[in-house]
Amino acid sequence: MTASVSRRSGGRSARRAARAAPLAEALRPIRAGMPGGRYAPLTEADVARIHGAALDALEQIGLADAPPSGVEIMVQAGAELGTDGRLRYPRALVEDMLAKAARDITLCGREPAHDLTLSGNRVHYGTAGAAVHMVDVSGRSYRDSTLQDLHDAARIADRLDNIHFLQRPMVARDMPDNQSLDLNTLYACCAGTTKHVGTSFVEPGTVDQCIALLHEIAGGEDAWRARPFVSNSNCFVVPPMKFATESCQVMEKVIAAGMPVLLLSAGQAGATAPAPIAGAIVQAVAECLAGIVYVNAIAPGHPAIFGTWPFVSDLRTGAMSGGSGEQALLTAGCAQMHHFYGLPGGAAAGIADAKLPDMQAGWEQATSNVMAGLSGLNMIYEAAGMHASILGFCHESLILGDDLIGQALRCVRGIEVTEETCGLEVIRATCLDGPGHYLGSAQTLGLMQTEYVYPALADRTSPKEWEELGRPDLLANATARKEAILAEPSAARFDPALDARIRARFDIRLPA
Amino acid sequence: MTASVSRRSGGRSARRAARAAPLAEALRPIRAGMPGGRYAPLTEADVARIHGAALDALEQIGLADAPPSGVEIMVQAGAELGTDGRLRYPRALVEDMLAKAARDITLCGREPAHDLTLSGNRVHYGTAGAAVHMVDVSGRSYRDSTLQDLHDAARIADRLDNIHFLQRPMVARDMPDNQSLDLNTLYACCAGTTKHVGTSFVEPGTVDQCIALLHEIAGGEDAWRARPFVSNSNCFVVPPMKFATESCQVMEKVIAAGMPVLLLSAGQAGATAPAPIAGAIVQAVAECLAGIVYVNAIAPGHPAIFGTWPFVSDLRTGAMSGGSGEQALLTAGCAQMHHFYGLPGGAAAGIADAKLPDMQAGWEQATSNVMAGLSGLNMIYEAAGMHASILGFCHESLILGDDLIGQALRCVRGIEVTEETCGLEVIRATCLDGPGHYLGSAQTLGLMQTEYVYPALADRTSPKEWEELGRPDLLANATARKEAILAEPSAARFDPALDARIRARFDIRLPA
Repeated sequence: MTASVSRRSGGRSARRAARAAPLAEALRPIRAGMPGGRYAPLTEADVARIHGAALDALEQIGLADAPPSGVEIMVQAGAELGTDGRLRYPRALVEDMLAKAARDITLCGREPAHDLTLSGNRVHYGTAGAAVHMVDVSGRSYRDSTLQDLHDAARIADRLDNIHFLQRPMVARDMPDNQSLDLNTLYACCAGTTKHVGTSFVEPGTVDQCIALLHEIAGGEDAWRARPFVSNSNCFVVPPMKFATESCQVMEKVIAAGMPVLLLSAGQAGATAPAPIAGAIVQAVAECLAGIVYVNAIAPGHPAIFGTWPFVSDLRTGAMSGGSGEQALLTAGCAQMHHFYGLPGGAAAGIADAKLPDMQAGWEQATSNVMAGLSGLNMIYEAAGMHASILGFCHESLILGDDLIGQALRCVRGIEVTEETCGLEVIRATCLDGPGHYLGSAQTLGLMQTEYVYPALADRTSPKEWEELGRPDLLANATARKEAILAEPSAARFDPALDARIRARFDIRLPA
Repeated sequence: MTASVSRRSGGRSARRAARAAPLAEALRPIRAGMPGGRYAPLTEADVARIHGAALDALEQIGLADAPPSGVEIMVQAGAELGTDGRLRYPRALVEDMLAKAARDITLCGREPAHDLTLSGNRVHYGTAGAAVHMVDVSGRSYRDSTLQDLHDAARIADRLDNIHFLQRPMVARDMPDNQSLDLNTLYACCAGTTKHVGTSFVEPGTVDQCIALLHEIAGGEDAWRARPFVSNSNCFVVPPMKFATESCQVMEKVIAAGMPVLLLSAGQAGATAPAPIAGAIVQAVAECLAGIVYVNAIAPGHPAIFGTWPFVSDLRTGAMSGGSGEQALLTAGCAQMHHFYGLPGGAAAGIADAKLPDMQAGWEQATSNVMAGLSGLNMIYEAAGMHASILGFCHESLILGDDLIGQALRCVRGIEVTEETCGLEVIRATCLDGPGHYLGSAQTLGLMQTEYVYPALADRTSPKEWEELGRPDLLANATARKEAILAEPSAARFDPALDARIRARFDIRLPA
């Protein structure tokens, strides 16, 4: 049980030489869109029961508070408006709309290299949320989050290979009004990263200016519609089983503008959703199926993400606990329902209840991120940087999250069992004729970069080396990396002429 | 997406009242031996291929360095001794011995309440390892581990619900010789916990005194043999494909003494095992199958744990990386092979490469512990407290590991999909007639303690509450818990008369 064989001369120089060669993109051991699915918390019978219960809920209980426009659209499609003001959905309507719903959708990046294909069990990790605080790691304290914090998060995410998209993770609390907030949020995200951006709109009235900004960035409406690089994270329901009237109006506007929609149902088990994990999934599925009816009644096949995002309460206090095992199960169970419907799906994982990026944060973020990946969830939202049960965002944690997710992605990639990986030739050569170890074997050298994932900041030194290096501190190193990234010019920043046009036309609050 | 609903009056006082009632043992949401298995990294074809390759390796390559006694025993059973000194195993021999091997074994605790039944996908977490350092959390430093450290670890583990057994996690480096080390290791562990203990013996010569000590503790040889509460962690092979001669002699002695054996094959992928994950599993399976032949040729049906413990190298340096995604996959893949053979199995998870219990340690320990649990591994060794790629052990981390494993066990428990958990009555009552939330519903209150797992030290406060509490520090709280546990008398300590007899007969180095 030797912990280190680093002093053996076998292959170290050979390995160093191999490392010197750059690694072709195609050979990278992990990447966006790798298929998960080897973990399935639900049996087929479980899935069928949840589906049936969701259909029953839509047929018997239905949803209240649809805006008049939504009532009209959905009644015309076949929904029934009760005297209690609730819309109820016959099973056949839901099934018809499921048949029309978009599958295998692409979420575009501003750079095509960052396009995400949402199909099957393909897994993508990214940020999300609406944190209202920034975590100050060195001061061990919380403060209000700002537009600059948001932009910095976008710039950092742009540089992290394992963060595949940037949904707005925090609220710029220094903005004076809703229009300014929504417009500047969009600007700060898009000016910081060329990866796909998700954002939300506080009210329908702020949408037009934001769409105009997107046309400007894209180089015209046609270019925007050809490759919409921003999606709308839309909390279209207020669980349990009520539409969020204004958000629905936002949804109608963004669909008209050609923007993909994340149909986000964010109930909280034990508070705004049933306390049993299965019951919370039933309600989230029912609500998102109502969303599928809504979207496809407006625009059949419009790209929409089935956003069952049930959260968990700590039932002792009613407070949210995003870092719990119950949360990890909820999210993985939802992923299975997405696969059952064959729809692109997303849910939340990676949330820490921990206030700081400490050991608790590590285990909380890993548990749900790993399970979400193994379950084959298409869009893993809130995967990095999220603390205090989504109330706080942390740049250092985002950077460390890239390492954490790298290992999760390695787990998603799984075990390749082939004639080559299981063949006896290497064992035979090593044991019968060879050196008695595999350090310098051609197979080992060949797999070094294509099979194994190496962390950027996580430390793997021996205690002796660690001592010699001055006992490096994980968080201090993350802060140093953050400062290095932010000291460089943003690779995603707009062309100066474009930026000048934008600033002339819109009230951009981020310093040029 | 409200993060907290704690101010709603709905059910808080009702919940407080419910919490006041003690929770019956049978209603605990998590416990030892819950079945995993919903995660399967290998397909059936993968499993068959690995099995076939392992049989080929045993037949064609075989193992070197068996002691003369082992050669005699195994040749008599049907193994073939080659002119190269290697023992080779015909497929029929392996299959015959698999048929004789013990299944559904029980590892006894000194208290029957701690008995572990190793069958099916039942999951148990515990410590293990041979760390040579203690992590000093407040000093952020490493020092040599001592007998007192080991005893303290046993006492702490005895108090942690989610640590189901104590295998010796570190080496008492202050012992003067092998006999003293093995004897005092056993004493320090058993005097600290009534849970099942795993230990190892440095050489065959130390075994007799240790068995005598166990007879003394048990109250005689018959009592020991009726309920052996200590197993032997036996590194019976030196990968690749060589027997560890002295360890095999130890194994023969402990089998005669009625002690269960952990057949531990601890290769290191890329160093002492093939670099591909699948290849490392093939070799570990082959080696453990040789162990099964060995044990069952001596004593058919003797309780043995199939201990495929392949580790991972960071191929850049050859150093071990127990905290990697590759490690988590190796361990989960091995669990599937155990299930294929229907044998009780164990492997390593929960190892951190991180030197300290920091965020890296959290994600490393969680990733492999969660995947091991979901894969249904019977014995998850090294699950808590392990740092620096098994070179360092940390008491604070052990304590925090209890919380971490609690969440992993919640994930293992999975999602109960039943008429009750999916039924529409609660949703209907809440949405159509009720308060519009589930906080005070009878279902929520009923599930509060039986379905949800609450951490002991992990923090779930809001930023505001956290600030009011003086920004509690996770590690400081773990240190406080450690000191509180160690300040109490050990519940597992021996009866004074027994302890006096032991100390009169054996050279016990732990202060009375």
